[in-house]
Amino acid sequence: MDLTFLGTGGSVPTTKRNTVSIALRPGPEVLLFDCGEGTQRQLMASSVSFMRISQIFISHHHGDHFLGLPGLIQSMNFYGRLVPLEIFGPEGTADLVNKMLGLGVFDRQYEVTGHDLRPGDKVGGDGHHVEAFRAAHTVPSLGYIYQEHDRPGRFDREKALALGVKEGPDFSRLVNGETVRTEAAAVTPDMVLGPSRKGMRFVYSGDTAPCPEIFEACQGADVLVHEATVTSDLELKAREFGHSTAKDAATLARNAGVGTLYLVHISGRYEDAGPLLTEAIGIFPRTIIPNDLDSFILRSDK
Amino acid sequence: MDLTFLGTGGSVPTTKRNTVSIALRPGPEVLLFDCGEGTQRQLMASSVSFMRISQIFISHHHGDHFLGLPGLIQSMNFYGRLVPLEIFGPEGTADLVNKMLGLGVFDRQYEVTGHDLRPGDKVGGDGHHVEAFRAAHTVPSLGYIYQEHDRPGRFDREKALALGVKEGPDFSRLVNGETVRTEAAAVTPDMVLGPSRKGMRFVYSGDTAPCPEIFEACQGADVLVHEATVTSDLELKAREFGHSTAKDAATLARNAGVGTLYLVHISGRYEDAGPLLTEAIGIFPRTIIPNDLDSFILRSDK
Repeated sequence: MDLTFLGTGGSVPTTKRNTVSIALRPGPEVLLFDCGEGTQRQLMASSVSFMRISQIFISHHHGDHFLGLPGLIQSMNFYGRLVPLEIFGPEGTADLVNKMLGLGVFDRQYEVTGHDLRPGDKVGGDGHHVEAFRAAHTVPSLGYIYQEHDRPGRFDREKALALGVKEGPDFSRLVNGETVRTEAAAVTPDMVLGPSRKGMRFVYSGDTAPCPEIFEACQGADVLVHEATVTSDLELKAREFGHSTAKDAATLARNAGVGTLYLVHISGRYEDAGPLLTEAIGIFPRTIIPNDLDSFILRSDK
Repeated sequence: MDLTFLGTGGSVPTTKRNTVSIALRPGPEVLLFDCGEGTQRQLMASSVSFMRISQIFISHHHGDHFLGLPGLIQSMNFYGRLVPLEIFGPEGTADLVNKMLGLGVFDRQYEVTGHDLRPGDKVGGDGHHVEAFRAAHTVPSLGYIYQEHDRPGRFDREKALALGVKEGPDFSRLVNGETVRTEAAAVTPDMVLGPSRKGMRFVYSGDTAPCPEIFEACQGADVLVHEATVTSDLELKAREFGHSTAKDAATLARNAGVGTLYLVHISGRYEDAGPLLTEAIGIFPRTIIPNDLDSFILRSDK
C-alpha cells in the first residue's frame, strides 16, 4: 500500500504546495482524499495513474478541497474513461457534483455519481472499507478512516499434517475458516492458524479543530494524515477558522497511539515548514511533513 | 506593455504546459484572456499580480478555458480583494459565472459580474478597448482584439516657438487638439504635431479553425496569439474539433501582415514543440512558441 501527497497546502496554493489532495493506493485501484484545484496536473507529475481512481472522498465544500474535480473528470473523459467514478462527501455532495458536471460544454461518456455521507457511513471496497466521521470545521465536514480488513493468521502446514489433515482442498478449507474432519478428530481453524493479522488503519482528518470524534477514529491507527494549518502561537486563529495547530495534531497522535503522523494543509505563510515540524516532533517524534509529490510505502508495524 | 503566457497547453494540461491563460499588462491593470484550471498558481509563479486583474475574457465554455475561475475568484477574496471583477465571454457567460460562484461554501466580499458578449461588442478600458469577434470552434467561441487607442503625434517644440506660440498652456492646448492664436496668425495642431502614433493591436484567437473573421481581426495586428493545436499532418483531426494547425496560424499571420505570432494551445502529444515551430517559421519566420511563464515586452514596430 502506498500514499502519495499530491497537494499539501492550505486554503490558497503556493508555488511550492498545491491545495490538498492525497492518493492512497492499496492495490491497483486508487482512492483519492480531497481534490483541490490542479490535482490532475499533480497526478500527472506523480506515479499515480489518474485513470485508476475509483472513489474520491471529499472532506467538505470549501473550494480548496474540491475544485480540482471538474477538470479531473473532464481529463479522464478525454483519455477515454468508461469506468464509473464515485465521489463521496458530506451532505450536499451529490448536488455539488451535479453542479460541477453542468459547468460549460462537456459530453461525458462515463458515469460520475456523487453521494452524501453521514458520520458512521461506510463505503465498501475490495478488502477494506472507508468510514466517515464528523470533523469539527466551520462547515459540515467529514474525516475518513480507511480500514483494511483483518487477514487470517499464517497457516501452520506442519501442524496440520501432524493433526492428520491431508494436503489439498482441506488446507484451503481451514484457511477459509472451515472445520475439517480427519479420521481421528475434528480440526478447527484456530488449531492451525496463527493470530489474525490486523488490517492497516489510515485516518485522514480533512479540515478540523480537535474533537472527540477524531480522537476516537485514531485509536489504533497506523497512519494519520492530519491538517496542521499553523503553529500553536496562532492557536486562536486556528480555532476561529476550525483548524488545528501542529501541536494539536501531534498531541492527538501521541494520545491516540498512532503509528506515524503526516501533517498537511500547511498555511502559505510558512515558506519553510520547519517551525511546524519542530513543534510536532517535540510531542510526537514520528511526524513527517511531506512535500508535494512525496510518496510513502505504508505497512502496519502492529 | 507586456504579455505573459501563464498556460500554453491544449485541452488537457501536461507537466510542462498548463491549460491556457494569457495575461496582457498594458499598464498597472492586468487583462486576462482565458483562465484554465491552475491559473492562480501560474500567476503566483509569474511576475503578474493576480490582484490587479480587472477584466477576464473567456473565449468559450470548454473547461480548459475557464475552470481556473472559481479558485482564482476565491483566492482573490482570501487576499482581501474589494475591487469588482468583470468576466466577459460568449453567450451564457453571465450564467456560467453565476454557477461557478454558487459552488460550495464561499462568502465573497467583492463583486464579480459575468457578461455575455456578441461578435462586434467592445469593452472599453483606459486608453484601449477590447473587441470580440466570432471564432470558428465546435461551440460558440470568441476571439478578442485588444486595440490601444492612437496617441497624438510628437510635439515639435522648436516649430511652435518659431510660429510665435508662447511656452506654457498654449503648448498643452495644441497637444490636446486645440487651435492657438498668436499675434500673427492661427496655429493649428497639425502644424506642430507629427503624425499620430498608432496604438498597439493585439489579437487572441481562442480555439478556432481558420475563418474570415479572424483574418479580418488580424489586419494590422502587431501581435497575434493563436492556437496551434497540432501540426498539419493532423489537419483533418484539427478541423473535426474546430482547431488550427501551426501551418494555419502561420499562413494567417503572413497573409494578414501580422507583426509577431505566438503559438499556444499546444496539444499534449508534443513533448517537444519543435515540429510545430519548424512548420510555422517556414511560412512566417517571426513565430514564437512560448513556454509557460515566458513574458515578452511588446511594442509596435509600425
